[in-house]
Amino acid sequence: MRFEVILDRSVALPKSESRVAQVRQLLLGKPIPSARAHHERLSLFFGLPVFASDALSSAAYATEAITCVLILASATAIGLQPAITLSVCALYLLVVISYQQTVRAYPNGGGSYIVASKNLGERPAIIAGSALLIDYVLTVAVSVAAGVAALVSAFPTLHWALVPLSVAFICLLMWANLRGLRESSMLFALPSYGFVIGMVVMIILGVVKVWGMPAPVQAINADPGVIGKEAAFPMIFVLLRAFSAGCVALTGVEAISNGVPAFRSPAATNASRSLGWLAAMMITMFLGTGFLMQHLPTLNLYATANPEYRTVVSQIAAFVYGQNTAGFFFIQMATAVILILAANTAFADFPRLASILARDGYLPRPLARLGDRLVFQNGVIVLGVLAVALIIHFKGQLDLLLPLYAVGVFTAFTLSQTGMVRHWQKVRGAGWPMKIAINGIGGLCTGIVAIVVLGTKFHEGAWIVLVLLTLSAIGLFAIHRRYEAIAEQLRPAETATLQAREQSVILLVPRVHRGVLSALNYAASLHGDVRGLHVTLDRDAVPEIRNDWEKYAGSLPLVVIESPYRSLLSPILDYVDQMLEEDPDRLVTVIVAEAVATKWFHRFLQENVAQQLKRALGRRKNVIVSNVRYFLN
Amino acid sequence: MRFEVILDRSVALPKSESRVAQVRQLLLGKPIPSARAHHERLSLFFGLPVFASDALSSAAYATEAITCVLILASATAIGLQPAITLSVCALYLLVVISYQQTVRAYPNGGGSYIVASKNLGERPAIIAGSALLIDYVLTVAVSVAAGVAALVSAFPTLHWALVPLSVAFICLLMWANLRGLRESSMLFALPSYGFVIGMVVMIILGVVKVWGMPAPVQAINADPGVIGKEAAFPMIFVLLRAFSAGCVALTGVEAISNGVPAFRSPAATNASRSLGWLAAMMITMFLGTGFLMQHLPTLNLYATANPEYRTVVSQIAAFVYGQNTAGFFFIQMATAVILILAANTAFADFPRLASILARDGYLPRPLARLGDRLVFQNGVIVLGVLAVALIIHFKGQLDLLLPLYAVGVFTAFTLSQTGMVRHWQKVRGAGWPMKIAINGIGGLCTGIVAIVVLGTKFHEGAWIVLVLLTLSAIGLFAIHRRYEAIAEQLRPAETATLQAREQSVILLVPRVHRGVLSALNYAASLHGDVRGLHVTLDRDAVPEIRNDWEKYAGSLPLVVIESPYRSLLSPILDYVDQMLEEDPDRLVTVIVAEAVATKWFHRFLQENVAQQLKRALGRRKNVIVSNVRYFLN
Repeated sequence: MRFEVILDRSVALPKSESRVAQVRQLLLGKPIPSARAHHERLSLFFGLPVFASDALSSAAYATEAITCVLILASATAIGLQPAITLSVCALYLLVVISYQQTVRAYPNGGGSYIVASKNLGERPAIIAGSALLIDYVLTVAVSVAAGVAALVSAFPTLHWALVPLSVAFICLLMWANLRGLRESSMLFALPSYGFVIGMVVMIILGVVKVWGMPAPVQAINADPGVIGKEAAFPMIFVLLRAFSAGCVALTGVEAISNGVPAFRSPAATNASRSLGWLAAMMITMFLGTGFLMQHLPTLNLYATANPEYRTVVSQIAAFVYGQNTAGFFFIQMATAVILILAANTAFADFPRLASILARDGYLPRPLARLGDRLVFQNGVIVLGVLAVALIIHFKGQLDLLLPLYAVGVFTAFTLSQTGMVRHWQKVRGAGWPMKIAINGIGGLCTGIVAIVVLGTKFHEGAWIVLVLLTLSAIGLFAIHRRYEAIAEQLRPAETATLQAREQSVILLVPRVHRGVLSALNYAASLHGDVRGLHVTLDRDAVPEIRNDWEKYAGSLPLVVIESPYRSLLSPILDYVDQMLEEDPDRLVTVIVAEAVATKWFHRFLQENVAQQLKRALGRRKNVIVSNVRYFLN
Repeated sequence: MRFEVILDRSVALPKSESRVAQVRQLLLGKPIPSARAHHERLSLFFGLPVFASDALSSAAYATEAITCVLILASATAIGLQPAITLSVCALYLLVVISYQQTVRAYPNGGGSYIVASKNLGERPAIIAGSALLIDYVLTVAVSVAAGVAALVSAFPTLHWALVPLSVAFICLLMWANLRGLRESSMLFALPSYGFVIGMVVMIILGVVKVWGMPAPVQAINADPGVIGKEAAFPMIFVLLRAFSAGCVALTGVEAISNGVPAFRSPAATNASRSLGWLAAMMITMFLGTGFLMQHLPTLNLYATANPEYRTVVSQIAAFVYGQNTAGFFFIQMATAVILILAANTAFADFPRLASILARDGYLPRPLARLGDRLVFQNGVIVLGVLAVALIIHFKGQLDLLLPLYAVGVFTAFTLSQTGMVRHWQKVRGAGWPMKIAINGIGGLCTGIVAIVVLGTKFHEGAWIVLVLLTLSAIGLFAIHRRYEAIAEQLRPAETATLQAREQSVILLVPRVHRGVLSALNYAASLHGDVRGLHVTLDRDAVPEIRNDWEKYAGSLPLVVIESPYRSLLSPILDYVDQMLEEDPDRLVTVIVAEAVATKWFHRFLQENVAQQLKRALGRRKNVIVSNVRYFLN
């Protein structure tokens, strides 16, 4: 029997011996065997909210974002809002169709990183990957902070708790995601669909209400000096800015393409259908809110700092249901919850992307490890920690970061679609010219948007994203180089053969007791050249130790070293160094008998030279430190 | 060559390889070889201040302590002060003579613990030892806090810095004592002798001044309600309380008897002479301040909280030199400094006593270890930490603790002298009846004082000392029992013989790389039954690893285990457990190839299963974990 392969181990739960493991199971649930991985996959119905809550949440603010830019030109410029909304919707459709092609072409996960790395090479892939990683972190921090801010604005007494509440929500999301995909999807489906249904019902009711009304002249209130503030700028510039502001509606589309393998089979079909449903829901909500906004009798556009500030969605809700009605509050709460849940998309995607990058050697390997609950737990933890750090650092005031991540999103879009064009050029399946056309136009449009966003928001902070992207890409490359260097160093020489090496065994003998004797028996079993080593601080004690040693160790030699400076370590180190110098090829095994106390407070009663010795000897080549433990009751 | 005894190692300084060691040397000085121990001993002149600063410092407050009690009876009761001062002086002489006998009888250190343990048995010895340990901690905290309070009262703007300054002074004392005896004695001789000379000069000048003056009627000012407050109590009770208050003068006498071995040879003679000098200086200062206090034209006795508060010594200084003169300030500063230095006595004695207790197995062994600088460094650190904790806990307000430690002091005195009586009964040298008489009367008197102090101060907090003493004694006994149990467990069986045991060697193979191959060579050199062990998370990777293994390991078997829950640890633990179950006598050596990164940030790139495995396997008997390290550049 040369190979004893135990592949059919019964799938019994591993014993959870330690307390830590028990607490862990209580919190996160029982481990799930790898074999059940396909059971943990998501149906279309549950998969959509997991990967699309980020995308859906943008319906809460995209319309408002466009309007707030337009009003800077003039009050009448708001009339251009439908045109911009429609062009964003067209872009949305284009991107979604483009991504449906990607998903079908890469059923094992077709995020920008994979598509770019398979078709465009390492550099574009790493840029896409970095952009997405940064965006996910920003998404968690920004959307949780925004959701908590919405909650807090409903209950002003909670204002002091902005940061603690944000951190608590992130911890809740971490916990849900560490428990695993299936259960977190259960938790998130309800509020996501609740938001969509609430919005759609509100839009229908609103449209019916508007239908019966005479066309009013809309009264517009805004902070003094805002209306027409940038009237001097060329109109085209204002339009571009309004368009790029509206493009926040597209954030989150990427998520589904990254998450394809999390869908139940046929994964690609389910993912592609999710994209279709997402587009349908988003465009309905976006057009609906845009239409109703145009028909509000009074439109208030105050800065968030203004106490009169109300979001456009809440103004629509007040218009449709009346102020402070149940319907109004439902929309308010659903919006707050979907904003917080938007973070969940990042929690679903970041760990998956990080694991792919780690598997390819661009991030630390532990990120690629699938945990007990079939979740890339290290990625979940890293994302949570980074987001909490951002929130604490900015004290929850993340409004400034909100416009930033469109840059990352559109960079990733562009790279992904460009990659797909190359893909079809190589593969040339049925109808490839059409596919190239779709991805090509998609890539072109998103590329232009990326440049526009970067240009129009450069001074507002888009440059920060560029800096972060560069730093992150440099970091990923550095990690990759390091792993390659390690792999090179560890590649076995072709001529390597098994050869037992000569070894000397040094047994440390503080005095001859039962623990040392058990170590001595072990030393003797090593078949090396065995000797005892005693460091003495007191010459008078030497004869007794020598006697004891002779009695039990028989003919094995005992080396006694006096320590003039009362150090126990340095004479041992010196002796070992001398041995290594005499014969550099020799392996030296140093055996230390180490007492193991069963109670923690007993540890204070032991002098543990073993640990110090280990650290000190650990830096020497050809030295192995073995602990033979003995147990004290 | 059976025994290679390297006893004549050249006394070269050990190389200080690590940064830590270099910083250490910079702070504490170069290590001192054991052979130079006798050079580090103290002459009479330098030894006295090291061990007597505590005793000397009590001259600063003993007179005041008596007076403050007497005034509670009536203003005229202060007339009894000379009588009480004289009886305390008599007790002082008695105790010193008694201790001179002890010192000569126990030239290797004759502290209460040693004398009690040699003559009275374990329990009295432990009680004496505990009392002293507690006293030393209290001494450091109380006297540093008192000294700093004296400094701060001179510069009221520093009031906020009471705690930080106290902690800083304790750290300074720790540092000086970690550097070693000789150098710290240099540092402390000057202020100690400065204080004594300053006091004596002041007393002489004062006596001369009083001589020429007509006997005045003394005006006494005190806080309202203090004079005669306890007039209802029987006079004898007031006298006893005043006497026991005066007995604080005796604290610190014990120190010299503990420190005998620190004196230069002939140690006993030098120590005995120090005691004589100490008594002469103390009695001079005590009588002098008592006399001058009686002759102050105006005596102010305010509570320390009263802004008018001035110590009696400072009132005497003002009387002799005039308020705010150089002489006045000199006495003030010298008093503050000697109070802080009193703590140094504890730093000289506590580590020594702790080392003796540790050597006898009543305290953790590391306390018995003589450090680089021939100092029991662990004791110095423990004392410093405990004192700092006390000061921080009580926020520097330690006045309440001040009266407490007389209980401990007199308990130790009594046990020591009782022990000496038994000693002379056994030894019966020349003049033993006289010696028994001296020690007997000493013991009787100090015993009575102990009871009086305990009785009169019980409600003020003496009960706390009793509680601490009991807890500490219980702790020491518990430690002793534990060490005895360990010694019993580790005693080798008489029939024990050397026998090599059969062993199985398991080499963990995550994949076959250079590091694993080097570990494999080591495994092969162990001459056991060697097998590789690979835990797979992915069946598809198995054939490659099997191939690689076959190529290098030849005929050695490779065990492959699938891990259904993706844990790397638990399959290994299960496998080892199964082996141990099959043959409980078998030794199992688990070899782990461990990567050593040369840069700290590279560590994040490694998954270190080795450490976790070690912790987990460490709890199993007959399992040895060996790390074979490989180095990454």
